[in-house]
Order: sequence, then structure tokens, then C-alpha cells
Amino acid sequence: MERQASGILWGDICYSTDKDTLITRENACLVWEDGKIAGVYDRLPEQFRAYPVEDCRGKLIIPGLVDLHIHAPQHPFRGLKMDLPLLPWLNTNAFPEEAKYQDPDYARKAYEIFAADMKKSGTTRACIFASLHLPATKILMELLEEAGLETYVGKVNMDRNCPDYLREGEDAPAVTEAWLEETAGRFSHVKPILTPRFIPACSDSLMEALGNIQKKWKLPVQSHLSENPDEIALVQALHPQSRFYGEAYDRFGLFGGDTPTIMAHCVHCPPEELEMMKERGVYIAHCPQSNTNLCSGASPVRQLLEAGLQVGLGSDIAGGASLSIFRAMTDAIHTSKLRAALLDRSLAPLTLEEAFFLGTLGGGRFFGKVGSFQEGFEADVLVLDESKIPHPQPLTLRERLERYVYLAGDDWITKKYVKGRCVC
Amino acid sequence: MERQASGILWGDICYSTDKDTLITRENACLVWEDGKIAGVYDRLPEQFRAYPVEDCRGKLIIPGLVDLHIHAPQHPFRGLKMDLPLLPWLNTNAFPEEAKYQDPDYARKAYEIFAADMKKSGTTRACIFASLHLPATKILMELLEEAGLETYVGKVNMDRNCPDYLREGEDAPAVTEAWLEETAGRFSHVKPILTPRFIPACSDSLMEALGNIQKKWKLPVQSHLSENPDEIALVQALHPQSRFYGEAYDRFGLFGGDTPTIMAHCVHCPPEELEMMKERGVYIAHCPQSNTNLCSGASPVRQLLEAGLQVGLGSDIAGGASLSIFRAMTDAIHTSKLRAALLDRSLAPLTLEEAFFLGTLGGGRFFGKVGSFQEGFEADVLVLDESKIPHPQPLTLRERLERYVYLAGDDWITKKYVKGRCVC
Repeated sequence: MERQASGILWGDICYSTDKDTLITRENACLVWEDGKIAGVYDRLPEQFRAYPVEDCRGKLIIPGLVDLHIHAPQHPFRGLKMDLPLLPWLNTNAFPEEAKYQDPDYARKAYEIFAADMKKSGTTRACIFASLHLPATKILMELLEEAGLETYVGKVNMDRNCPDYLREGEDAPAVTEAWLEETAGRFSHVKPILTPRFIPACSDSLMEALGNIQKKWKLPVQSHLSENPDEIALVQALHPQSRFYGEAYDRFGLFGGDTPTIMAHCVHCPPEELEMMKERGVYIAHCPQSNTNLCSGASPVRQLLEAGLQVGLGSDIAGGASLSIFRAMTDAIHTSKLRAALLDRSLAPLTLEEAFFLGTLGGGRFFGKVGSFQEGFEADVLVLDESKIPHPQPLTLRERLERYVYLAGDDWITKKYVKGRCVC
Repeated sequence: MERQASGILWGDICYSTDKDTLITRENACLVWEDGKIAGVYDRLPEQFRAYPVEDCRGKLIIPGLVDLHIHAPQHPFRGLKMDLPLLPWLNTNAFPEEAKYQDPDYARKAYEIFAADMKKSGTTRACIFASLHLPATKILMELLEEAGLETYVGKVNMDRNCPDYLREGEDAPAVTEAWLEETAGRFSHVKPILTPRFIPACSDSLMEALGNIQKKWKLPVQSHLSENPDEIALVQALHPQSRFYGEAYDRFGLFGGDTPTIMAHCVHCPPEELEMMKERGVYIAHCPQSNTNLCSGASPVRQLLEAGLQVGLGSDIAGGASLSIFRAMTDAIHTSKLRAALLDRSLAPLTLEEAFFLGTLGGGRFFGKVGSFQEGFEADVLVLDESKIPHPQPLTLRERLERYVYLAGDDWITKKYVKGRCVC
């Protein structure tokens, strides 16, 4: 497939400009130059006539989707063993599976399937947890580079409250720096992200060392926060001096501010924690299906958005079973509705506009100007295949988008561009 | 495709015998004679050697799925307009759409898509609401007959609390009998079912007449029950003499006992209502996605099962967006988990075994010996396509089933048999 940094797509175009505003442009053209959006036009302006044109008239065209939280080594057991809450689920399911990535052959076999699934999905950007293993993490980065998505990948750090067979030793900081050195400058599309698993699995001395590595390498950070009541109680016991879970990260300089940070889940954050996240610009990866599968609860996601926090969506494979961020959008609406129906009917649930925003621009902002078709945004673009959902009557563009989001199969993507390059 | 009343399938076989018991038989053969299951064997018994054999080794083979509640005329707007609770949703979305079926040309166009989608889905049995229109209902029955599924179809009755353009007059009982007379004996696979829309939409005189039609024609009955708090309050206002919603049906002989009856939803049934349903053998069509989409609530489905009620699953298109009963299984688990997480963590959520039972044998019992591979059951069989979910390691049969249920696309069906006939 031709790789192109500039191009033109004709079709039916939808994108968000903020959480409440969905722009729909029927039979319009989307133009990008040097990988960045030039604009959306009803007629092609003269100055772009030289760019290659793809005629997708009649098809939906939207920004690429953003997955702010996914565990690559858990991909083989998505949809399996869904009968435990978080902490026993980690010990019984996640840790034994992740231990297999000690073996680079297994890692390659499993990560090839993962990278292929990511490539054919609607996701163009992702923040990815690997396992703690250095060789396997490098294999993952190589395969994702080939797939062409723009990703952050983190070698996981963990040295307590985890089984011996999946626990780092005192050399954890040195191994982490070796990983950064060995991969530095090797990839165009894959970048490293510092990844302490979560406070329960990281000793203070490890966190301190990671804080120093962050400062030295200016890395972004991803971890987990306030997912489950038992986890929160465990953090309180481990860090009695912290007023709330997030403060335990903050002590080590790993909670936003100058450190671009994503915290997954944030289902049960107390008000002071949310206040600090807002001040520090910490991103929330809302993972509705995982929160349901692991009985963690239902995030007050609409209230978080209204409070001005930065929120995107995560598939959280394999707490979540589905890789699809379209599915995450409807899961977010569903859990928001059940939260309203079961806890407080005065809470208005998430709208389609808000859910679509979360899966595109909401998460995209973590990557910069990503997730919209406004001028200057990076040209991550999907052309959607609606052929499996014929309908007997004319639909508006907004209706077609809603219907697609609710019904889309995992591979109903006709074309996918990342930074203007066609990747499939 | 050859139609066969007797046959043999080799493969990896899973089926329920009760809500807690999932039988898994690797590399076994399923044999049916004259449309009924003869047995599951590790080696093919001599007496069946003459039957046609289909070699599906390595593939999953399960009973056909049962959809106890679906509105055919709402199929075009599935996944659309999900932003209202039940009563305004009916007025704003469902009724205007159903009114279009006054036009037989529109009905044919829309029902052709519906029948094609049902055919390629995993559903082999369904209880279907049409609209109130006689010609359109006949078209639907013809198309479903061609699709080869075993279905009950109901011309809807409704004469109050609905717009003038979608309201029956005093001739409603006569039109209903005309429908029964005109379709009697015309179909092998499609049977009529009496379908008062729900108490709010049916006057006492209409209900009385339907009670008489039921007795005369010995028809089964389908309707809606205790779906939404506002609906329940409306029924209470309309029937102040009834202790609970179900008693309003019971006054007219339309609530189980000698009348095989399915009530959709049953999210908010008081104990006396459940008691009467259990006594009378009334079936519950649990429709988890619809209950979430319309903010109706989360049924205590596991407690209903444990109390010995008859429960199956419904897609409830278009309150539900997905036609897939696999999806309904996981939606049932999800809503059950959120109910536990948000209301009472002591309630154990629905298991995979229970959800699989609900979508096969639980609903299948309404049709007789349907939904299992025990001897004498009708041979409704699916061969599943797992090719889109490759995995790097061996999985047990139970794991493959769980994974498929969570991840299945709408059309991942390799073969489908109804009463031993291959329909696709």
C-alpha cells in the first residue's frame, strides 16, 4: 500500500471539536499535507489538486481511535476467566500468563497476533503495557513499529505483592535504563513510557528510582489508580501517610504536572484526588468493560468530563475482552446508564457525542493534536465499512455514525491512515 | 444446501443440561434422526452409519440460540436514538417507525433485511413482535418461513396510550381473527402468538376479547412486564384493583397456567408477582442490553434463576441494538456484575454456565425439547467459526466457548441446522 504524507479523501466526514460538538459534513473532502490536516472542504481548493485522491464517497470517514490503556501480554486470554475481582484475578490469571513472556519465542508468537489485531482494528494510537521482560518488550515494539500505529509501550516495573516468578530484583532500575538505551532512536512510531504496574506492586525504593529515571529521560508515565475498593484499601495500608492513592504516585514525581501521565480506571477517586489530577493534567483512561468484568464498579465518567478532567477510553485488554474502541464507547454509555438507573436517576448518562469524543479527541490529546480533523491535527483517519448493516431508509450522517458505533464488528475498517500514511 | 432430517456432525461439542452444568465433549459426534438428537458419541455407533456425515473436527458445535423477545419492525433503527427512557422512547422512536409498516412495500424491504440478518445469526428459534398491520405481518411470516428458523410471530394489539396513526379500532379482535384464519396451516416453521403490546396500550375490552381469542385458538401469549418504574406506575393507575402488574394480565387469562406465556423484561417484579409467575410457569425474557439502553435497570436475573423461574434471553431489538444472543449472554453477565458492584457486593453475579444456559436451554424450553443435545431434543445446531480469534496456546473446550461467547462477531457461524435441516 502506498505511504503518503499528503492526500485527499472524499466521503461523509464526522469528527469532534469538543465533548459536546460533533461536526458532520456530507460528501466533503478531507485534505492533509505532510501528515497534518489542512481542512475539510465542500469543494477541493485549487492548491491541493496535486495530492493523491481516494474516492470514498458514500462512506463514513472519522478520526482514528485512541486506546489509552491496554495490556499487550494479556491479549491471549481476553474473554477468558472473567469470574474474579481485580486482586485475585491478577494472581490467578494475569500474572501466570504474563510470566510466559520470559520466553521470547512465546512472546513473538503471541505478540504477532496482538499486533495483527491492533493493525486491523480502528485504533491508530495506543498506550500499551508490556510485561516486565526486556527481550519480549523489544519484540513487541518491533512488531508494533511494523504495524505502523503510533504507540507508547512500557516495560512493566513490579517488585512486590506479586509472585516470585514475575518479580523484578534490585536491578529493576538498571534493566529499565538498559531497555531505554537499547531502544532509543530505533523506532519511528513506537516510544517508551515509564510503567510502574501500580502502587501495590512497586516498593518505595523502586518508585524512587523510577522517579529519577523519569526526570533523566523525560518520559511520560502510565499506571493504575483507584480501580477497586480492595486495591484502594491495600494502598492505604502500604502508604498510611498518603491522603489518597494518587498522592502515593505524587511523592515520587509520577503524577502529572511536568510528567505527562495516564492513570487507568479512576472509578473510585475521592474529590481531593480528582482535584489534584485536574491541577496536574493527569489523563484518565476510562475502561468501562474492564470495570464491569472485574466487578470494580462504574466510573462517574460524565461528571469527570463536566468537571474538566482529561478523559479518554481504554480497552484494558484483558480486564476488557474487546479490543474495539467503538465497543468501549458504547460500554461507556451503558455503564453510565446503569450507574444512573441503579444509583441516582438524576444523573444524566453519557451521550453519543461525549462517548465518541472520549474515543477520539479525548484520548488523542495525550498524543498532542490528535483525534480530530481540525486544521493542524495529525492525519489519523478511518474509512468505515457499513456494508453489513444495510438499512431500508435514508439516515442522517449522525444516525449512521451512532448506528456504526453500536453495531461495528472488529474488522469493519475499509482504510486506516496514521499521520497521513495508509497502514491498511 | 441439502436439507436433512438425519445427520452426523463431528467436532468439539458443548451444551447445557441445566443452569449449572455445561457438558463438553472433544472430538465427538452428534447424531440426529428425524430431526431429533439421538446422542453424542466418542465413536459412531453402527446403526447410524448410513446417515450423512459432516466433518467439522476442530470446530465448536453448540445448540442453536433462542431469542425470546424481539421486535421485527424496530430492526431498522437498532443502534439509533438511544437517549430516552421507555415511555418517551416508544412515542418518539418506536411508534413512528412501526407506523411505516402500514405500507407493505416498506414492510417487505425492511423485513427482507431482518430475515436475512436472523438467518445468518446464531438464532434458531425466536418469539417475534410484528406491528399491528395484518398485511405486513403476513409478509414477515412468509420471509421467516423462507429463512427456515422456527419462530412465533405476533400481530401486535394496541388501542390506547398510543398515537392515532398506530392504534387499532373496535375491529381489533376481528382483524386478529382474520390474521389467524388467513395464516392458519400456511407455514411449517412459523406459528402465531397472541401479542397484546402491554397493559398501558390495551384497553380492558381489547384484553377481554384477546382472552377469548386465546381460549378459542389455544395460542401462546407474549407481552411486556415490569420493565420500567414509570410504566409500572402507569399500570397501577390504569388497574388500581390489581395488586401488581402481572395481575392485570391474569384478569384476562393471559398470564400463564394453561396459556404458555412469555413476559419480556421483568426487571422490577415484586415478590408476589414472581410467585405467581413461578406457579403459572410464565417465561421471563431477560433483555439485558435493552434494559441498559433504556435506563430501565438491571434485572436480578441470577436470583430469578435460583428461585426456579423459567428464564431465557431476548435481544429486544431495538431497545437492544444487537441481534446476537451471544452478546445477550455477556450483556446478562455484565449487568449482573454491575448490579452486584453498585447495589450489593454479596450477590454473586451470573456465571458463564448460567448465561449460556439462558441463551440455549433456558429459552429453548418454551419451544419444547429445545436448546440442548440430550436425547430426544430437537436438532438445532450451530457450527462456530473461531478463525478470527487465533490463539498462541492450547485452550480447553470450555475456554474456547467462553472466549467465543465474549468475542463472537454477528456472522461467525459456519453452519446452522434447525430441527436437523441445514439452513445456512
